[in-house]
Amino acid sequence: MDSTADSTALLTDHYELTMLQAALKAGTAERRAVFELFPRRLAGGRRYGVVGGVGRALDAIEAFRFDTEQLAVLEGVVDGPTLEWLAGYRFTGDVWGYAEGETFFPQSPLVVVEASFAEAVVLETVLLSIYNHDSAIATAASRMTMAAGERPCIEMGSRRTHEAAAVAAARAAYVAGFTATSNLAALARFGVPTTGTSAHSFTLLHDSEEQAFQAQIASLGKGTTLLVDTYDITEAVAKAVELAGPELGAVRIDSGDLGQLAHDVRRQLDELGATETKIIVTSDLDEYAIAGLAAAPVDGYGVGTQLVTGSGHPTAGFVYKLVAREGASGDLEPVAKKSAAKTSIGGRKYALRRRDRKDVADAEVIGIGTPAAGDHNDRPLLTQLVKGGEIVGREPLDAARDRHRASVEELPVIAHSLLKGDPAIPTLFQ
Amino acid sequence: MDSTADSTALLTDHYELTMLQAALKAGTAERRAVFELFPRRLAGGRRYGVVGGVGRALDAIEAFRFDTEQLAVLEGVVDGPTLEWLAGYRFTGDVWGYAEGETFFPQSPLVVVEASFAEAVVLETVLLSIYNHDSAIATAASRMTMAAGERPCIEMGSRRTHEAAAVAAARAAYVAGFTATSNLAALARFGVPTTGTSAHSFTLLHDSEEQAFQAQIASLGKGTTLLVDTYDITEAVAKAVELAGPELGAVRIDSGDLGQLAHDVRRQLDELGATETKIIVTSDLDEYAIAGLAAAPVDGYGVGTQLVTGSGHPTAGFVYKLVAREGASGDLEPVAKKSAAKTSIGGRKYALRRRDRKDVADAEVIGIGTPAAGDHNDRPLLTQLVKGGEIVGREPLDAARDRHRASVEELPVIAHSLLKGDPAIPTLFQ
Repeated sequence: MDSTADSTALLTDHYELTMLQAALKAGTAERRAVFELFPRRLAGGRRYGVVGGVGRALDAIEAFRFDTEQLAVLEGVVDGPTLEWLAGYRFTGDVWGYAEGETFFPQSPLVVVEASFAEAVVLETVLLSIYNHDSAIATAASRMTMAAGERPCIEMGSRRTHEAAAVAAARAAYVAGFTATSNLAALARFGVPTTGTSAHSFTLLHDSEEQAFQAQIASLGKGTTLLVDTYDITEAVAKAVELAGPELGAVRIDSGDLGQLAHDVRRQLDELGATETKIIVTSDLDEYAIAGLAAAPVDGYGVGTQLVTGSGHPTAGFVYKLVAREGASGDLEPVAKKSAAKTSIGGRKYALRRRDRKDVADAEVIGIGTPAAGDHNDRPLLTQLVKGGEIVGREPLDAARDRHRASVEELPVIAHSLLKGDPAIPTLFQ
Repeated sequence: MDSTADSTALLTDHYELTMLQAALKAGTAERRAVFELFPRRLAGGRRYGVVGGVGRALDAIEAFRFDTEQLAVLEGVVDGPTLEWLAGYRFTGDVWGYAEGETFFPQSPLVVVEASFAEAVVLETVLLSIYNHDSAIATAASRMTMAAGERPCIEMGSRRTHEAAAVAAARAAYVAGFTATSNLAALARFGVPTTGTSAHSFTLLHDSEEQAFQAQIASLGKGTTLLVDTYDITEAVAKAVELAGPELGAVRIDSGDLGQLAHDVRRQLDELGATETKIIVTSDLDEYAIAGLAAAPVDGYGVGTQLVTGSGHPTAGFVYKLVAREGASGDLEPVAKKSAAKTSIGGRKYALRRRDRKDVADAEVIGIGTPAAGDHNDRPLLTQLVKGGEIVGREPLDAARDRHRASVEELPVIAHSLLKGDPAIPTLFQ
């Protein structure tokens, strides 16, 4: 399992270090530089994105050190002077960024790194990995919790993604409003609440469904959730209430037409007097399926595959680009690539969320340098995360969770649309 | 960074342990059980799948231990007797499976775990995580290397996926025929060769493209790969050859119409006498784009996003199901779930690759128990991976890479089709 004490320095592309080597030799490595991490667009015609991974990225910056083990691997990858430089590496620059849980739009400057070229370039891969993964998950999760309204969503996709990605996915989903995860490492690492009851194998292990239900109730109590679709659902629900009585916590349905079954099971539970017993549904749910079940008597959604794979968009598509660097004069000068379709905008950005008089967001305002004074109802979006190499942006995960809720609530109503379309607010360049 | 010495025990769903608790209390936890990990179908109408992650799964089984740190997390998740049982956990059962790099088809029993229910059920999540991720990547990678023919494919997708998933993705791509990765941790952990040269930021750091090229050649030699699309490609290629001469290793094109540009750049290089200088293309390539460039004078493909996200199918969709368990008689009895659309087949499986007289595969033969004797040209697919708790299935990564090549070559020609359709060979149940 990952540990933040372990080095993150090799979670890096080979070319970051060969570029470093060439720049060290050319005498350009120490030029001051500004890199920005941003999305060119929103994936899949979505209305907004959600920033995930900030806390993990800060841990990764702090753990980005080359000790004997890492340096031994790099013999043959880079030359002696570069190894020597890496041995002394620690990030001493500044980082500003959107806080975790914040919503974002095309071109939002999610991270701004200012340091020497050498110090900043080597962070490219690991920062992109973390932000691209965690924000893809947080964005999908936010659409799901929005579609679910007041009903809880539970993350249970660990088995469908890389075992370490699963832990980060559980964390990102929690930021974006999920109430719990099945992943125990997410509890250990990030304090995300866990939940869970039983699988079909548990029923099949026993000589009968009745024996399985009895075993579960005896050990976990009547408040447990019984899985009722191993054989016949109607018989299972009858048996469940017979054994646990009306105190039965919940039943879970994991196959079939979930809407129809939820209606049938609700009626049966009510007729049996189990009016407080909840109905949890699972089985390849995504935001559209959740929205489609809004009228069904469902009390909670368990979401797996579609959550951990970003519901069709497993990566957020962020890039990390040099936007300014020290020129001959010693001042920072804007720089930008000019080739086809991948143009970037030179110069260090600021970013503001402009709101109308009712505090509803109406634009993402991005400019170069410092914003002009004015009487707009603007909320600054960049906050300092690292100051002179010291991590200053850490916060409890619940702060990110609260920010997510507030940021989504601030958006115009169109943000709730699951249909493909334009971003909920336009990006304005000043 | 992950270390195999770290425990994998918490990379597990909460319900595995609550099921364990209930089964311990009911006295059913020690029943002998057989679980199988298998695909119900092939994702996306693909012709075959490729098994990835076997070596990593064996490491994960070995590292599945609950020490003080893990047990402290589980206080409140499970009861005292369960914690005590977990404290003594070590897997003592047997595991058979398809070897890494082998191709697979619908219902192929990729892993067969025989142990007590308790010992086997707790491995579900971590085994599925590893196999679902690594096999999704290996399968996508195999289609890409098949489309690329003799031209090398280089994995460079680390920035588009979770930072630890990136390392596993580089490994899986190598198994499926990629020649190298950009990921340095994959070199450190698994010995995958790495490669890489420079990004646009390196050009932009310098006062001119010429200065950047000079810096790179001075440090990395004339055999380096120069990125030629930061400004004007024709000017960049002319300058590159002027500076490095005909010994220039390669140029990289990362934007625009790659086929047209490759033709133009090849002509220009040849006219400048740089007939040995190679052309590497990158920019959102997938297996279809690679196939589309077959007629273009391209010498290598750098593949990123589409590789690490499984080219549209980021998870392999494997499940882990109880197929047999000890009955009242003490014998193993087949068990199977009966609910809608997710039916499984009870009983422990064998699997054979049936070939015709020319050694071309023509069926995936699956049956319960032991195969009947016959004169078929059958290749057994299950190999022992764990014996009485001891890992016996480890092998060098190149063995998996060789197996992949041989297994794909054995398939009928239809396996080369990138169009959606039926599996290359049918699955026959005996």
